[in-house]
Formats: sequence, C-alpha cells, structure tokens
Amino acid sequence: MKVPFGGDYNPEQWPEDVWKDDYRLFDAARIDTVTLGVFTWTLTQPAPDVYDFSTLDRVVAKAEAEGRNVCLATGTGAHPAWLARAHPEVTRVDFEGRKHRYGARHNSCPSSPVFRRLSTEVARRIAQRYAGNPAIVAWHVGNEYGGACYCDLCAAGFRDWLRQRYETLDGLNAAWYTTFWSHTFTDWDEIEPPSALTEHWRGPDHTAFQGITLDYLRFMSDAMLANYLDEKAAIRESDPTTPVTTNLMGMFRGIDYHRWASHLDFVSWDNYPPDDTSQARMALTHDLMRGLKDGQPFWLMEQTPSVTACRDVNPLKRPGVMRLWSWQAVAHGADAVLFFQMRASRGASEKYHGAVIGHSGRSDTRVFGEVAALGAELERLGAATLGARTPARVALLFDWDSWWALELSDGPSRLVRYQQVVLAYHRALWDAGVGVDVVAVTADLSRYDVVVAPALHMLKGDLARRLEEVAARGGSVVTTFLSGRVDEDDNAFLMDVPGPLGALMGVRVDEWDARDQEFVNPVRLGDQTVESRLLFELVIPQGAEVVGTYQADFYAGTPAVTRNAFGAGHGWYVAAGLDQAGVSWVLRQVLDRHELYGPYPEVPDLETAVRVAPDGTRLLFLLNHNAEPVSLTARFDGVDLLTGTTVQSGQMLHMEARGVMVVRQ
Amino acid sequence: MKVPFGGDYNPEQWPEDVWKDDYRLFDAARIDTVTLGVFTWTLTQPAPDVYDFSTLDRVVAKAEAEGRNVCLATGTGAHPAWLARAHPEVTRVDFEGRKHRYGARHNSCPSSPVFRRLSTEVARRIAQRYAGNPAIVAWHVGNEYGGACYCDLCAAGFRDWLRQRYETLDGLNAAWYTTFWSHTFTDWDEIEPPSALTEHWRGPDHTAFQGITLDYLRFMSDAMLANYLDEKAAIRESDPTTPVTTNLMGMFRGIDYHRWASHLDFVSWDNYPPDDTSQARMALTHDLMRGLKDGQPFWLMEQTPSVTACRDVNPLKRPGVMRLWSWQAVAHGADAVLFFQMRASRGASEKYHGAVIGHSGRSDTRVFGEVAALGAELERLGAATLGARTPARVALLFDWDSWWALELSDGPSRLVRYQQVVLAYHRALWDAGVGVDVVAVTADLSRYDVVVAPALHMLKGDLARRLEEVAARGGSVVTTFLSGRVDEDDNAFLMDVPGPLGALMGVRVDEWDARDQEFVNPVRLGDQTVESRLLFELVIPQGAEVVGTYQADFYAGTPAVTRNAFGAGHGWYVAAGLDQAGVSWVLRQVLDRHELYGPYPEVPDLETAVRVAPDGTRLLFLLNHNAEPVSLTARFDGVDLLTGTTVQSGQMLHMEARGVMVVRQ
Amino acid sequence: MKVPFGGDYNPEQWPEDVWKDDYRLFDAARIDTVTLGVFTWTLTQPAPDVYDFSTLDRVVAKAEAEGRNVCLATGTGAHPAWLARAHPEVTRVDFEGRKHRYGARHNSCPSSPVFRRLSTEVARRIAQRYAGNPAIVAWHVGNEYGGACYCDLCAAGFRDWLRQRYETLDGLNAAWYTTFWSHTFTDWDEIEPPSALTEHWRGPDHTAFQGITLDYLRFMSDAMLANYLDEKAAIRESDPTTPVTTNLMGMFRGIDYHRWASHLDFVSWDNYPPDDTSQARMALTHDLMRGLKDGQPFWLMEQTPSVTACRDVNPLKRPGVMRLWSWQAVAHGADAVLFFQMRASRGASEKYHGAVIGHSGRSDTRVFGEVAALGAELERLGAATLGARTPARVALLFDWDSWWALELSDGPSRLVRYQQVVLAYHRALWDAGVGVDVVAVTADLSRYDVVVAPALHMLKGDLARRLEEVAARGGSVVTTFLSGRVDEDDNAFLMDVPGPLGALMGVRVDEWDARDQEFVNPVRLGDQTVESRLLFELVIPQGAEVVGTYQADFYAGTPAVTRNAFGAGHGWYVAAGLDQAGVSWVLRQVLDRHELYGPYPEVPDLETAVRVAPDGTRLLFLLNHNAEPVSLTARFDGVDLLTGTTVQSGQMLHMEARGVMVVRQ
Repeated sequence: MKVPFGGDYNPEQWPEDVWKDDYRLFDAARIDTVTLGVFTWTLTQPAPDVYDFSTLDRVVAKAEAEGRNVCLATGTGAHPAWLARAHPEVTRVDFEGRKHRYGARHNSCPSSPVFRRLSTEVARRIAQRYAGNPAIVAWHVGNEYGGACYCDLCAAGFRDWLRQRYETLDGLNAAWYTTFWSHTFTDWDEIEPPSALTEHWRGPDHTAFQGITLDYLRFMSDAMLANYLDEKAAIRESDPTTPVTTNLMGMFRGIDYHRWASHLDFVSWDNYPPDDTSQARMALTHDLMRGLKDGQPFWLMEQTPSVTACRDVNPLKRPGVMRLWSWQAVAHGADAVLFFQMRASRGASEKYHGAVIGHSGRSDTRVFGEVAALGAELERLGAATLGARTPARVALLFDWDSWWALELSDGPSRLVRYQQVVLAYHRALWDAGVGVDVVAVTADLSRYDVVVAPALHMLKGDLARRLEEVAARGGSVVTTFLSGRVDEDDNAFLMDVPGPLGALMGVRVDEWDARDQEFVNPVRLGDQTVESRLLFELVIPQGAEVVGTYQADFYAGTPAVTRNAFGAGHGWYVAAGLDQAGVSWVLRQVLDRHELYGPYPEVPDLETAVRVAPDGTRLLFLLNHNAEPVSLTARFDGVDLLTGTTVQSGQMLHMEARGVMVVRQ
Repeated sequence: MKVPFGGDYNPEQWPEDVWKDDYRLFDAARIDTVTLGVFTWTLTQPAPDVYDFSTLDRVVAKAEAEGRNVCLATGTGAHPAWLARAHPEVTRVDFEGRKHRYGARHNSCPSSPVFRRLSTEVARRIAQRYAGNPAIVAWHVGNEYGGACYCDLCAAGFRDWLRQRYETLDGLNAAWYTTFWSHTFTDWDEIEPPSALTEHWRGPDHTAFQGITLDYLRFMSDAMLANYLDEKAAIRESDPTTPVTTNLMGMFRGIDYHRWASHLDFVSWDNYPPDDTSQARMALTHDLMRGLKDGQPFWLMEQTPSVTACRDVNPLKRPGVMRLWSWQAVAHGADAVLFFQMRASRGASEKYHGAVIGHSGRSDTRVFGEVAALGAELERLGAATLGARTPARVALLFDWDSWWALELSDGPSRLVRYQQVVLAYHRALWDAGVGVDVVAVTADLSRYDVVVAPALHMLKGDLARRLEEVAARGGSVVTTFLSGRVDEDDNAFLMDVPGPLGALMGVRVDEWDARDQEFVNPVRLGDQTVESRLLFELVIPQGAEVVGTYQADFYAGTPAVTRNAFGAGHGWYVAAGLDQAGVSWVLRQVLDRHELYGPYPEVPDLETAVRVAPDGTRLLFLLNHNAEPVSLTARFDGVDLLTGTTVQSGQMLHMEARGVMVVRQ
Repeated sequence: MKVPFGGDYNPEQWPEDVWKDDYRLFDAARIDTVTLGVFTWTLTQPAPDVYDFSTLDRVVAKAEAEGRNVCLATGTGAHPAWLARAHPEVTRVDFEGRKHRYGARHNSCPSSPVFRRLSTEVARRIAQRYAGNPAIVAWHVGNEYGGACYCDLCAAGFRDWLRQRYETLDGLNAAWYTTFWSHTFTDWDEIEPPSALTEHWRGPDHTAFQGITLDYLRFMSDAMLANYLDEKAAIRESDPTTPVTTNLMGMFRGIDYHRWASHLDFVSWDNYPPDDTSQARMALTHDLMRGLKDGQPFWLMEQTPSVTACRDVNPLKRPGVMRLWSWQAVAHGADAVLFFQMRASRGASEKYHGAVIGHSGRSDTRVFGEVAALGAELERLGAATLGARTPARVALLFDWDSWWALELSDGPSRLVRYQQVVLAYHRALWDAGVGVDVVAVTADLSRYDVVVAPALHMLKGDLARRLEEVAARGGSVVTTFLSGRVDEDDNAFLMDVPGPLGALMGVRVDEWDARDQEFVNPVRLGDQTVESRLLFELVIPQGAEVVGTYQADFYAGTPAVTRNAFGAGHGWYVAAGLDQAGVSWVLRQVLDRHELYGPYPEVPDLETAVRVAPDGTRLLFLLNHNAEPVSLTARFDGVDLLTGTTVQSGQMLHMEARGVMVVRQ
C-alpha cells in the first residue's frame, strides 16, 4: 500500500511497440497507476450499432499484465463525430445562441436524450466488460464536466427543474421578482434560458434578472450531475463496490461541487494553477476539494510534470517545483499523485502539454528524472499518509451560490471578485500555518473554534443561527462587506445590512461606496495603517466595538472593522476591502485568542500542514516554497520519512530551496 | 405651485401595507409627485385578451387619496413574456444578426405591427381609464427609448422610409455613392439594414457605406418616434390637454432628439452622469435638453439619490452632492426634481440602485435625510423658478447628424469623439459663467452674439449662410477642425475644406494629420503655449488672420487658429485638437469682445447661472462644485431664497463645500 | 520605356466633364498608366441577363485616346446586390457561423457555383471586348483576395480537397491525430470547417485540432486561387499573351502566396504599411513579393500618396516620404509605381483615403506637387531599372505553413509571433545593407552563401537535407527556437528538438520556458550582453560550440546561441528570443565570415540596395530614411541618375533628409 503514482495514459494513440518502451520507463519511475480510456468513445463505439473493445482490451490487459493499477474511464468527455452527424441535437447551443456543430470536447448537450442514452450505454458496456478485473481501482466518469448549453432541450429541462423547485408560477414569479420590468411569467413555456439572446448584456455576468441566471447555473450544474449519475448507475449494474469518481477542476465557477460531492465515492481533481506563484491558491483549492467530502482524502488526478499548453504563456515548472507541489497536495489530503500525461501526444492542441515521456521518448531528461525521483520517494513513504485526516479548528465557508450571486450582481462593484476575497482570508490563515477546512455553508460548524465567511453574499437556511451558536459557545466568526445581503432567491433582506447576521455582528450598514482600483482609503488597525480598496461600507455600530477606522473621505473616523461580543465569543465584521496585511492583522487577532498557529507563522512561504493517520500518527509537512534555502530551529521532534533523519526540537534545520520534509511526530 | 418633487414609484412590487409606510415617509420628505406604472404592461394585460387594471387602480387611487401629483406611464418599456411567445416577431434582431427571445427590457422591434397595435391599445385603455383624474399632471410614454432592431420587418420599414426620402433608386444610389465598390441597387428589396452581416466590420462605427448607416440611424430614430406617437395619439383620444412626454437620456447617440422634440409636450430626462466629476458635462446636457424645445423648462425625470447599479463601479454620491446636482438642474431650466426610485426593489438588476427608501425602510439614513432636506428647501422656494427662462447670448450647435457622420467616418481619426470636442467648447463657456443655449443647427441664430459650432462635420441646408449672417451683423462664429466636410448625404463637398464655411472662415485646408493620443504639437496662442492632439489640419489662410501657430513638425509656424473679419464680425477657425486651456483661451478672446462673462469667471468650479421668471424676476444660482468652501466678494445684490439672507454687493460671502445659493436679484 | 506611373482610376464615379480635368492633371504629373474597372461588376452587368459596357467603353476609350497604358480589371472584387438577392449562397458564412447578407466587398463565397460561373463570365466578356486594345498592358483579376467562408458549399469543397490530399479517412485521421479527444472521422461528411462553432475557442488562432485548421487555411487559399484561375482562363480565351495578375497584400496571413505565385504572370502588391516607421518592414515585404517569382520584378500596384482611411489613426506621409518609399520599392525590384487612387471618391468608406487629386480638384497642393515631381523623376530615369534583377547571396526562408502552425499552436507561447521573429532577422540583414532574397522553403538554395530560417516551425520534404547541403559546401545556416518542431501535418517529430535539423545544428532541446513580455533573461554574446524575452529553450550541445549563454534563472550559464561546424560551413542555433541587438550581433558574425555587407552598414536607416539591369549595368540605390540629412564618404563611383551628378569614391556626399540617389556604377 502506497500513494498511487502515475496518470493519464493514452496508448491507443501509439503503435503497440511503443507500449513496451512506456512500461520500461514506468518501471524506472515507479509509476504504478494509469488512468486509461479518457477519450475513447469513438474507439469503443465507432458506429451507432458497433461496439469494438479490441484496442481497449489490449490496453487494459497490458496494464494488468504489467502489474499496474488502473483508473478506467468511460471515455465520454467528447462524443463521436458520427453521433453529432446522426443526431445534431447532441451538440450544444452556446451562450450567444449559436448552435454548434461537431468539434472540440466537452461538447455534449447534457439534456439531449440520445446523448444520455448512448453515453450511459457505453459506460454500461465498459463496466460489464472490465468489472472484476483486479487491476481496476477506480472508475473515472466523463472528464472535467463543465460548460453550459442553452438549447431548446435544455430550456425544457430548465422548466421541469423549475416546476420541481417552485411548484407554481406564483412561487417562481415571487422568487425571481418578476413584477420588476413587467417580467411576470404566465406560462412555464414562456421561460427561456438566460443568455445573450434573452436577459444578458455584456456577457454571462450581466443579467437583467439575477434570479433567473442563478437558477440556470444551479440547473446546469444539476443537469451535468445527472449525466454523471447516468453513467455511475450503469457502472453499478456490474460493479457494486469499486469507487467511482470524476475529475473536478478546483475553484471552477461553472459547477457547484457541493451539489455533486455526495455522489462521488472519492473526490479527484486536476491542479493547473494559473502561474508559478500559486502556492497559497493551491492550498485553498486542496482544502476546498478535501472539504467536499468532509475531510476524506482525495486524488490529485492531474497535474503537469512541466508545462501546460493552453495558456497564452506556458512557463516551465522550475526544478523542484513539481516535487514540492506534489507533496503539498499530499500534505493537504491527497492520497494519489497523478499526472497528465504519461506520453506526449504527437498532434492537436495538447502536443506541447508536458508529459512524463516526451516526443523523443527519452528517460535522461530533467523532467523524467524528477518524476522518477518522486516515484522513489513515494515508495519510501509507503502507506504512512494513506487515509490520514487533516485536523482543523478553523473553517472557511465557501459557497457557490454566494460566488454566483456576488458576481452576477448589478452593483455595487464588478471589481469585487469572490475568489480574490476568499483567497485573501484563506491566505492569512495559511501564512499562519493553521489547518483550515474549506466547507459548504451546510457543514457542521460545531467542531470549529473559528469560522471565517468572506463575502457571504447569500445567506441560506439556518446559517445565521448556526454562526451565532459558534460565537455563543466562545468561538469567533468573521465576515466581511457584502455579506448577508440576499436570500436564497437573491432577493434582498428587508432589514438592515448585514441582514440576519446583524445581531451577531452588532452593526448596521446603510450605505456603501465603490471605487476604482486606484482609490485607497487607509484603515487604522491597532498601531498600523493598511490600505483598503474597491468597497467601503459605512458602519453604524449597534453594540460592536470599533477595531479599525477609515482614515480618509467623508466617512473618515468611522468603523472599517468591528468586533462584537456575542455570548462567550465574537462576531467580527470587516467592512472594507482590506489589503492582505489588513486581512492578516484581523485574522491574527482571532488566532491569538484561540492560540491557533502552526510552528512557523513568521517564516514567509514556509508552509506547514498536519495529517493524522488512521492509527493516530501525526505527520508534519514542511514545504519551503521559497526559491532560496531557509534555516530554522526545529520546534518539534520526529523523523523525516523522506530521509530517515531524526529531528529534535531545538536543533537547526536547513531546508533547501523548494525543500520538503515529512516528519512523523 | 412649486417644483414637483418625488419620482418613480412601484408599489405593485409590494404588499399594500408597505404603501402606508411609503406615504408616511413621502410626507416626511415633502414628496408630492410620483411616476407610476413605468413597467406594468403584463400587470395590466396579463393575457392577449385580458386587461386587468385592478392593481393599477389601487395604486393610482392611493396616490390621489394621499394628495400626490401623478405622472402616469403607459408601461410599455418592456413587453410581456406571453407576447413574445405568441408573436416572436416582437423581439429584436440585434446588430450581430441574432434574433432575440424574450428577456430584458427595451426589447421590442419598433416595426412590429403586433407590438405597435398592442402597445397602442394598452396606452389607449390606460388613458381611457385614468384621463380626468385630477392627480394626473403628465403622461409618460414608454421608457428611455433606445436600442436598434435589424429584423426583416425593420428592413421593410427602412425601404419604405428610403422611398419617402429618395423617391427613386437613382436618387438613393447618388446619395449613397454606390458606384463605389459596385454597390448600385437595382431594386429596393436588395437593400439590407447595415449590420455586422452586411456593411459593418469591427462594430457599429465601422461601415463600408456611411450613407447607408447614417440613414438607418435616422430611420431607427423615426421608427421609435412612431412608437411614441402611436401611444401619444391613443392618449389624446381621451385626454386632449394633459402634457405627454417620455424620459430622454441626455447625450444619447442612438436617437436624434431634435427629430423628436416637437412631439414632446415638455422635455424630461434621466441624469446618470458617468462619475462624480461630471458637473460640466451635466451642465452641457441640461442645456441640450432645454434647447430641444427652444428653452422651455424641462423635467429632471430621474436621478439617483445615492448610487447607480449598472456600472462596473458604482460610487456613492458624497454628502451634499445630490442636493447640489438637483439645484444645478433647476438652475439650467428644470421645473421638476424627481428620483429613480422611491423604494428599492428587492430583486433583479436594480436592487442595489439607490432609492429614497432602502430595503430596511428606514427614515434615519443619511440619504433619506438629504432627500427630506431638499424637499423642505424646494417647498421654501415655492413657485419662484417655475416657468423661468434662461437668457443666453451664446449658442452652441449640437447636431446628431454630425455626431454620427464624424464617428462613422473612415479617416482621419477614430480617436476624435464628437462629445469630447463639444464638451471642451461648452466647458470653456461654462467656466466663464456664460449662459449658453445648446441648439439644433436649424435653430434661429438671430438672437445670439456668439455661435460656437465644434466639429460641425456635416453642413446641411442654409446653415453656412445663416452663420455668415451672424458674423455679418457683428457676431462671432467659432468652428473647428473636421467641420464643413460633408453634405446631408455624407458626401464630401467638391470644394476646399471647410466647404461652404470657407468664405466665413477665410481659410483653406488641403491636408491634415492624425496622430495617437501620445503625440503633442504645441500651439502658440498669444503669450502662452498650449497642447494640441489627435488632429492637425494644415491651414492656408485665404484672408484670415493667424491667431495661433503650430510649434512642431514639418508644418511648424503654420496656422493652428485663425480669425477672419467678416462683415462687422468674425469667423474663428480652430484647426487643431487644442487642450482645454487652448479652447478656453480662444473662447475668452471671443467673450472679451462681446463682454460676456458670469460674475465669477475666475473661480474654478463655482458655477453661476441665471433664470428669469415669467414676471421678469432674475434669479442668480451659485453652485459650489468644490469639495471645499469658497469665500467670495458679492458682485450682486439680492436675497438668497434658500435662507432668506440679504446679500449686498461688496460683502463677503462664504459658500460651504457643495453649497448652493438662489439669489433673487 | 519607363517605369509605369499612375494608379487606380474610377471615372465611372464622375460626370464626363470631370474626366477632362483628370487627364489635364495626369499630364501635369506624367501619369502614364491607369488601372480601370476594379469595382465594376454591377456597372457592366446590372441584371442577371444584361451586360452593359457602354460606360466602361467610354472609360477605356478615353484612356486610350489620351495615350495612357491601361491595367484593366475584371471588376469582381465585390458582387452585385442583385446577385446576393437572387442567389443568397454567394455571400459568405463567417468564422462565427453567421450567414452574411449583401454588403461590403470581398464578400463572395469562393465555392459558390453561381459566383464562380458569373464572375468567370464577366471576366470572359471583358476580355472578349477589350483584348487587343493596344493600351492594355495587363489584366487585373479581382482585388485583394482574402477573407474566408465557412458555408456548407465550402464544407463540401473542403471535403473534396481532403479526399484529394489524403485519399482515405485513415490517412486523414492519422494526419489530424484524431485518436486524441475521440475525434476519429468515420465518414467524410462528418468533417466540418473549423470555426467558432466547431473546433475553435477564443478566435481563429485557438483550435482544438491544429491539423484541421491548417488544412482549412490551405484549402481556402486554394479555393480563392481557383476563383482567380477561373477568370484568368476566361481571359486567356481571348488574349493569350498580355500578362495577368492580381494585387496581393504583402505579408498577408490569410493566403499562402507561394501556392499562387506560379499562376501570376507578374506579382503586384499594395503597400499600406502600418505606420511611418515601417521602412525595414517594407523592405522585407518587397523582398518577399519579389521572391514569389524567383526575383522577377513586380509592380507596386497601390500605395497612398498621403493618407489611408481605414486605420483608427491615419497619419499623413511627411514631405518626401511618398517619394522615398516609391524609390524604395524600385530599389527592391518594383517595375511600376502606382497609387490608390487618382481622384478621391466623394462618399463611402474611402472618401478620406488620400488621392492624387482631392475633392477640390486642385493641382497646387503639396501632395499633387510631390506626385508630379516623382513623375518627372521617373521620366528622367527612363528604362534604366526595367527588368533589373536584385542579386543576393543571402536567403531568408518565409513559410506560410510555419506561420500558421506557429500561431495556431497551443503552447508554448501565444506571444511569439511569426512576423516579428522574421522581421528581426531580416532587419539585421537590412541594417547591414545586404541583399536578401525572401524565398519559399522549396526554393533552390544552391546559390546562397547564407540561409536564415527564423521560427521554421514546420519542416517539410527534404528541406533539412537541403539546408545541410548549404552548410556542407561552406555556407551558413541560421535557425531559431521553435524550429524543426512539426511535420507537414503539424505532428511533432518523434525525435529530439530541433527534429531533422538536429544534426546540422548539433544541439538537443528537451525543455523550454515561456514568459511574459516583462521577463528578461540577459544573454552574453562575445563582450556584450543583450536581452532575451518570451521563449527560452534549454540547449544541450551535441557537438555545437557555445556562442552565447543565458545569464539568469536556473539555466544560467547554459547555451542560448550555438554554432555547429558542419562540413565546410556552420549551423547556427538561436535558442532564445533575442532582442534586435542580439539578433544583429549573431547575423553580423555570419556576414563577417562571408564578407557580405553593403557600403554603409554603420549608418542607421541609410538603406542601400542594388539592382542589375538586363545589360549588366549595376544600379546602387541609396535611401536616407532619416528625417535629418546625412553626410557620407562615397564608397563607390558612378552617376546619380536622378541628378546626373557624377560621384567619385572618397568624395563627400550630402544626402538630404529622406533623400534618394540612384547611382549607375
């Protein structure tokens, strides 16, 4: 038992004599796991009534014979050309109203009956054929679900979904506030998907009716989930136990993964950070992915060993970075480390995407060498991390509905972006070395001392009460500007801002200013002054203590940050778009109170994280994201599992640039 | 009798018990006027054959019972969903050729017979029902007409319009210069709306045939006017006297308001300046709106009390700004001060748009307080300003045809924007405190000493002769680069530039240079040097005196500004894109000659304006747009109507930041 | 015999009495050649069954009577409105999938049978009518072919073209690498044009399948060539000898002019440089156009005498620039100097495009004066340059396939642009005053000492072997990063980078980094340090000598430039995006070895070029592109044909700003 290591492998693109070379190189790199068949629909079903598994049979048999674990895909991430020609309704209509023809991938209308029937059937047949093969450790359904369709089949599906949700048109009209602009619907069939042809202007974020667009996002997330569930059910007909998953995409706005999580047997995701200074962002994303299923370990299903291909500029991962980021994934809960891809394709749009084996088939490249070295390390680690959990006393709430509602909103500011706000608050915790669970708003909050809820625009269900309970029992709750504004239907609360959070926060907000990125209002926090930007709420304390004040403009001297005593705990309200220093200052006040810090909160970009194995063993990860070495005094005892070195508290540690330690404490 | 105060009110969005709160708060703020029913088509006609006025009856009855004046809308600014489903031809085809489905607002094809029939019918029935109600002081047709349609119905309408205009295809071909690029039309039905599918590239400003696009703009303006006239006629069937209007949008490029003006019983417009340093721009726009109907007072139909919602960044009006801008409107001729909106909607795209009453229903907010204070001031003012005219000896010509022709033109520069040129010339006059009428090129010019015609690209009818008359009798005419270039069909004059203006200006222009924003050619004017940018005409004087010269490039030393003696007056030609200092220098030479200045031309951003009441009383408005107080020596005697204070010439005046005085002289 | 001088002339836009004025002015300017009838389809065929040559008869007869040479166009660059109405299939479907309606120009679907039939017929009739007219010196087919169509007729044409190319679907699937993303085509009819509706995202450069898009570019180039050939064949029915051409557009990405060249009797092109500092770019483009037909002289078919109209900002050609650029064209091989246009049109999108005769019809303008002066100079020159060749020992390879493949590629960088790379290498040669042939990769390389192949992404046929032969016999071959990557189908070579160029270059490249424009890696070259940007390949020498090294990042100290001894010559590999100084340093090393320099390599922007007349006379052109005079010591003997002055080596020469000398040596 060890961390599965390997990744996407497409031998069907190559003559079989290349396969032998591949496995020889896999051996050299300790690659034990391959994901097979991700885009094989046409290969396995070359015509409407023809299924042909001969190639896939050989591919799977070879992997089995070579003793690899197999993650077997259903191959439905792109439909066949013949299908689009025979049934044009399987292709999508885009946001602009354009009916697509055959091409690209992730190109199927999720509502198309023929697509649903045939994709289910191909999954069924693959499961029938390969279920029971002992090499298969997981089923991989579709690929990176995403995109949206606006065709008439989806319109009909949307109307059905709405009937389920609202039951009556009166309910729907109330939820969507259709009296505004004379939008009252008098028949379900009058409802159109919100697109550039109907409610939208200037693209997908600008809609006349936020409620309609919000529901379409929810519907589309559910429609794609139905596609996944179709195939999962077909697999389950033949294989009741092997786990089924699909590869998610981290902070992907298009799908509410919280609606999906319970249907995934384990979470897996593809990590393609936007640039090479993404360590904090990746930490957040790992925490989010782990939080989908209540802390259960996940798979890192894809990462590049070297470069991506789809960006305008595709920088190379510096030496050591791939290893460092792989260990970061493990530190945050990954129980597998996989790459896209094993061998670089010769043609089409990913031929320059990095691969373990490049076009020349060499094993003496830097990249292959680093992969092989990591393979050896993971072998050395063995089962130590498998199934380990990540203890956390801090929760950060992440909510797709709030993300959508905030970014669809007309006013106060299009410049306030949900991810950036969340990133700043998570980063402050990450810098402090605190374990954080990034969880849905429906999560059980009773186990946390601190709950951070940045930009919680939409407040659903009993969340306000549950947050009050956190504070009441002595915890700290932190929220920000633009929180508590709307209900589940995106209708404003008919009460003072921040709505149902008002009692906990002890403030009232009547007005707010939005300004361009260039405008700064300094905020005084303790003995330092930080900058705030973009959004400035004017706070009228209703019992809260003023912690920070604006220093400029007509509201100079009024509160920018407040803390409200609530029961045995506190409600913190951050009314302004503080810079990172400001956010960190606020959160360190909170962490101080709860004495929650990692061992090196003062060392920049030295990440620390803890996992606790099923047997209770505590593993401390130290990850030096700096391009320079760092010297530390050990603040722990243990054994570095990567080197076998014993560490004693108080001794000097030298971590090389991008160095990693995994200390069994 | 006093200035109507209030605005858009949508009680149909709320339960009736909220209405009571509303009127209580209206009382507190002296709100006496409400605009009702702006988006009520579906409410009043929920199905093809069903009209239901029950809600609107209660809304109007409540307003009447509460003693408010009512501006009653026909509610046709957005059509019902059922209408779009029953008659898909009512929705528009956009510039990209996309047929829209139901959604948003301002969404009706103006040429659609069913839209025209049903919108007229709903207006007819509303007028039948409510005409004679003494509360009703005005009818409000549609809402913010705008946008364009490119459907086949509009294509047919365009061809009819063209037949009216040109009578023969020969006439049309000559006007459109169709021998160019083999475009000769041999049948009316060959003519298509100019769009991304036909003549355009890179959007609405880039057309292969300026003449076609220009005529389509004129046609579309007329097609929407026909919609307005449909409804107005239907109202007049029941109510022959109550004034009818629609809310215009200031400097809105899509509609030539000069073609509309005679059909509005009074002008009303919605003032949403792009940012909080828009005082000069608003002054121009007020002057333009007042000029539509020859100086007749207008209504400020909408403004926000606090924030907008539709911009990327929606800044808050600082304390005092809403009051200051309201008084600025009155100073420029407004006889009503109205807001959008009375109570904030809960949902959809305007839920964050500012309102007198916010989501919490409070009256103890800053915004409500400022509204109520203004209400009290307006009450104090009483009837003093009603019907007052704004005397002016300076006219600035504003011409939609020139705007369109200039910005549609291929060459010389897409960076020269009509509004910016006009703004610079108006601002120079505004800085000097001079009253300006912004008028159509067809206006009677005989009453003006100075006529400023910036960027008068198109020269129509006898305008050149009428401008010569201004100069001949001792007046001053000022024009600029890119004036006098094309005739009514956008065909170049076959003569020296500036075409028919050549005799008056005494110059000839053979060539011109265009450069990027970064390039500056200094221009020497008297003893100062200013900057010029973007466009540089090379002037060969034909009798004119050289006033300013270029200082750089191969044409250094040649004229950039000239003055030509013509009869007893002058023709001024500004050949370069002067900066504001340069434009102001030129116009102050002109004002010096005619001794036209306000009392404080040397105080920045202290606006002064004069209205003369029907009884001859002269009212001097002082508006301090600065965020700081200013101290002045009074250069007038009178009584400040807002405070009752007597002012004597020579005394010190202290005006607070954003302060206002209304002095009866 | 002399250089034809004149240009596009559209008398059909004017009454005939204007024609007299025109010829009077043509006389004054020595205009001896007019291009007639470029957009006359509707004029000559006003209805399906009506041909009417009465106007064109008069136009041609007048030109003949006035003793001008005529370049007679077929007039098919824009189809008639009646044709689009009668046969909607003649208009294009654009990349976005939008079916266009009638409008603009260059608007015909190249695959439309009715367009092909009728355009051929109009060309046939024109040739029948005017062939044999002694005034006619050339036939001008269509106009500036370009743009693309994606309609179903083109889809069918594409499939036919693919059948020709690949014969079997297996061949096509292999070439397009369709196993990737399950794209295997099982029927020709499944293939769609690659567009925004099929394979593309984010516009024409972003495709899922590079191979499909590449083939569509090739197909579209061929489809338009077929249109040209249709008309040429129709002309040849009546006129077997008079040369036939069409006006090309220089470095125009949309058409592979190398596929067209053999079908043009001579090359002609339209020179509209993007700005007024384009001398080096124009030199490259002239060399490219001359290289299309193996060095045969070409016509400068269009240039503006003063300004363009279609750009956002249309700067004026400074005094002397039009003359200087005209002589530059002659220096690079032009045997005609023609303008667009003779008289400015009154209306539509080119009314502000510069013309020899402006709207006022004057001859006393600066522009007319410069045109007339040039006319006199060309008369003085007589036949001296006609038919002269441009000797060159340096070849620069230009390859549309590499251009397309590089810019369609996903990864490594969208910022690397083919033209910019080529420009830098050509400029280094141009700065040195070296004659360069810009040739296709299929050109005979045996006559060159130096072959420069920048960004030769695609390596086709036996090119690698032919480049090796250049080096083997003592020549120098220079190539760069991103060369030798893919084969003719855009599939990666399964070998070390730079693929088949590896032996010649003596290097191996396993990885490469791409960075934003801001990032600089200094490169040490000899005793200087230059900058490199965007793309950084990591080179492992396989025998090559290291010439330059990176100075930063983890690969500091590794090779950025190498030179490999190969036979008696060298292979140079430039692995990084060097700045101009770096590129020039490298190429001057190469030129040093071959002793290839013009007379003034050290004088910036003093261009020198040589043509050798059919009788062996050597003509040295000196072109001072500086806006200041330069003083030189003559390094040659001869007579300046423009002034008759004798020059002796060693004497001082004074060249005025933008001055020109044409020295017969």
